[in-house]
Amino acid sequence: MYLPPIDESHDGDRQSWIESANGHPDFPVQNLPLGRFLLGGDLKARAGVALGDSVIDLGSLLATGLLEGDAQAAAQRICHDAGNALIALSAGHRQALRRALSDLFSIGTSRSDTARKSASVFLHDMQDCRLLLPCEIGDFTDFNAGIHHAANGGRRRGQPDPLLPNYRHLPIAYHARASSVVPSGTPVRRPWGQYLSDESGVPVFQPTRKLDFELEIGIWIGRANELGSPVVIDEAPDYIAGYCIVNDWSARDIQSWESSRLGPFLGKSFCTTISPWVISPEALAPFRGSAFKRRPEDPVPLSYLHHPLDVLEGMPQLQLEVWLTAPPLEEPRLISRSSTGHLFWTPAQMVTHQASNGCNLSPGDLFGTGTVTGPDQGSFGTFLDAISPQRPSLLVDCVPRTFLEDGDSLTLKARATRDGYASIGFGDCSGRIEPAIDRYQGAPIQ
Amino acid sequence: MYLPPIDESHDGDRQSWIESANGHPDFPVQNLPLGRFLLGGDLKARAGVALGDSVIDLGSLLATGLLEGDAQAAAQRICHDAGNALIALSAGHRQALRRALSDLFSIGTSRSDTARKSASVFLHDMQDCRLLLPCEIGDFTDFNAGIHHAANGGRRRGQPDPLLPNYRHLPIAYHARASSVVPSGTPVRRPWGQYLSDESGVPVFQPTRKLDFELEIGIWIGRANELGSPVVIDEAPDYIAGYCIVNDWSARDIQSWESSRLGPFLGKSFCTTISPWVISPEALAPFRGSAFKRRPEDPVPLSYLHHPLDVLEGMPQLQLEVWLTAPPLEEPRLISRSSTGHLFWTPAQMVTHQASNGCNLSPGDLFGTGTVTGPDQGSFGTFLDAISPQRPSLLVDCVPRTFLEDGDSLTLKARATRDGYASIGFGDCSGRIEPAIDRYQGAPIQ
Repeated sequence: MYLPPIDESHDGDRQSWIESANGHPDFPVQNLPLGRFLLGGDLKARAGVALGDSVIDLGSLLATGLLEGDAQAAAQRICHDAGNALIALSAGHRQALRRALSDLFSIGTSRSDTARKSASVFLHDMQDCRLLLPCEIGDFTDFNAGIHHAANGGRRRGQPDPLLPNYRHLPIAYHARASSVVPSGTPVRRPWGQYLSDESGVPVFQPTRKLDFELEIGIWIGRANELGSPVVIDEAPDYIAGYCIVNDWSARDIQSWESSRLGPFLGKSFCTTISPWVISPEALAPFRGSAFKRRPEDPVPLSYLHHPLDVLEGMPQLQLEVWLTAPPLEEPRLISRSSTGHLFWTPAQMVTHQASNGCNLSPGDLFGTGTVTGPDQGSFGTFLDAISPQRPSLLVDCVPRTFLEDGDSLTLKARATRDGYASIGFGDCSGRIEPAIDRYQGAPIQ
Repeated sequence: MYLPPIDESHDGDRQSWIESANGHPDFPVQNLPLGRFLLGGDLKARAGVALGDSVIDLGSLLATGLLEGDAQAAAQRICHDAGNALIALSAGHRQALRRALSDLFSIGTSRSDTARKSASVFLHDMQDCRLLLPCEIGDFTDFNAGIHHAANGGRRRGQPDPLLPNYRHLPIAYHARASSVVPSGTPVRRPWGQYLSDESGVPVFQPTRKLDFELEIGIWIGRANELGSPVVIDEAPDYIAGYCIVNDWSARDIQSWESSRLGPFLGKSFCTTISPWVISPEALAPFRGSAFKRRPEDPVPLSYLHHPLDVLEGMPQLQLEVWLTAPPLEEPRLISRSSTGHLFWTPAQMVTHQASNGCNLSPGDLFGTGTVTGPDQGSFGTFLDAISPQRPSLLVDCVPRTFLEDGDSLTLKARATRDGYASIGFGDCSGRIEPAIDRYQGAPIQ
């Protein structure tokens, strides 16, 4: 199991000559995530790198000749190849590009002065860029690795053991809808759907009354395996191109009525918002940590899901936050804090399990970890985990709140911190709730 | 709700000058389905039309100048556009192309003699062609519309009412895996997976012992709706580009252990085989029939799922067959007959429901209807429906059989017949079971 090394690009003392990058909560020069964007009236997506409040235009940087060798080859592939080249870069190319960018954009490195001179050619204000999905998403799998979220669900259903018998033996997951995954900032329209009326107990077709969010981490798959050829856990990290934040918006009334016996469907497929930047395994190298500490009575994972290095270093250690802006409040309120420490399965275990039957992964596949809720009241990853019959709402600035209302905006954040290293973040994963379309009921949409 | 009319292209007396087409069980001149294929050492897929034992090479036909107007425009789009143009043709273009092909390839029509003279330019033996998927599959949804299959599942689980309360109110479905959908003829490798050992009752990681098939009809989506904009049932037929057969191979032991509570996952995602030709709504026009006859006590569908014409003509009437070739028997044996009359929901209801929450469909999305099992012992659509504690195997030529064994080949067929019209078929949906890969258990794959 090869994991990216820590090198000079992770040096916490490195500062960038792009001043907004220094101390930036998400994008210091130690991060350098890839993404795609539109500028002005562009019709064609450009590839870019986030640095402070700027986006480095990779195509324009390439044209300056400042990139060489494998870094140049990587940028050429991203900018000139069709398809999902950005996400399908080999680990070697990805590392070479990241190190070259670190060299070009840090102060006091061999080539930073040269780069600085032509900055106007390839730098854009991020606020002028429309950030897109980083690639075409092939298949989208949503796991249920957040153990407290899974247990809360079992408690709500009155299960004798909150966790079902299979939960600690394998990473439970379901296929999710790829077409409705959108980048941060896309408005979220309240969906119509069929569910049991609270009043009459019979099915109705109406806008959801229980619109919820789910705080998840996303895992980008960057490499393909052939159909019929599983991925062994030793090689699983090679299949991960990077990470993002996922908000798997959920309509709980629709989900509850439709889910027996085949699982979630339309309660989830109306919209899923992700943060637009691909945070690479290289950028996260200093922030690897141990897998979930199992209790002595928990089952030992079967051998195909076990690797000693994965136990020691398999989990990216991320602090997560949920911010709500709810009219008439104008300022966002931090309503929850959680962390990836509550994920029972590591990304490598998820990759290995998904491909264990020979299912073929493709560059551009997306995994969601499942809702990352912590054990405490202030660490919920969805309203469902925050409320209960005993506590049917939570207070946000003295206002009792349950599910999402029209006009609410929600922003999810993820950040990695470690003493001696510059913190890096994922960028926002945001959406604002728009009212349901008017007068649907099967009538032609006006 | 506009449905394709019956016109001269459906005339049962039309014969083709391609003699193998006349009386052909699948591809008489009244069918003319589109598909994609490779010829010889081709690297690039060609578009083709099935006619008898031949494939019409659409690009070569276009080059002869024999196609004009909308038919020419349709063929140009298919042959020259990138992406899923074949499946994304407008209904008007699809109809124009079909009528032009009927005119060119039938005996006694105005232009058949001209076409016949240049036949060598655009005709290939189908057996020389490697048939491919007709398009890139975006998202794949699997419904559970076969009511007897759903009820059999409930009986196996000992439910008081075999059908769950939601079943008759909405088309139950789940998101399925698109990457592992393969064209007919692709070998099916027995998957490894985690399941409870029959002997010890504890989880093991081994090749499945309960490899099964599922007989389903596939629905190709040919049109996009915008995210947030539902598809009303009046317009749902416009979204259907055609039909195929789906064999949703299933590993029952894996499925059973993994499915609570999020539904099927790896028990289904190792391989799904489809028939390669897109049978158009136009070719199926004479074979439309009424939706499932609900009992008086059944709920009336909510208005968004109801259209009078869909009740009268919403269901393509197809006879389905399952053929098993099991060594040492050399000849295929017909082991089951079923029909689409056992589907509780129509294709238009499935389209409408899938998009009812605003989920965006895309050309190249695939729906499976769910297993089409009939009420009788000889009409099973999966081994699971054929066997029970009381009858743990079925006899095939005096040999007791349950789940699929290595070396078995299974072929699913679908055919539409009606007095006064030429019958049309879907072509084979076949796969042969190959042994599991040797020595996996998490070890590097050799």
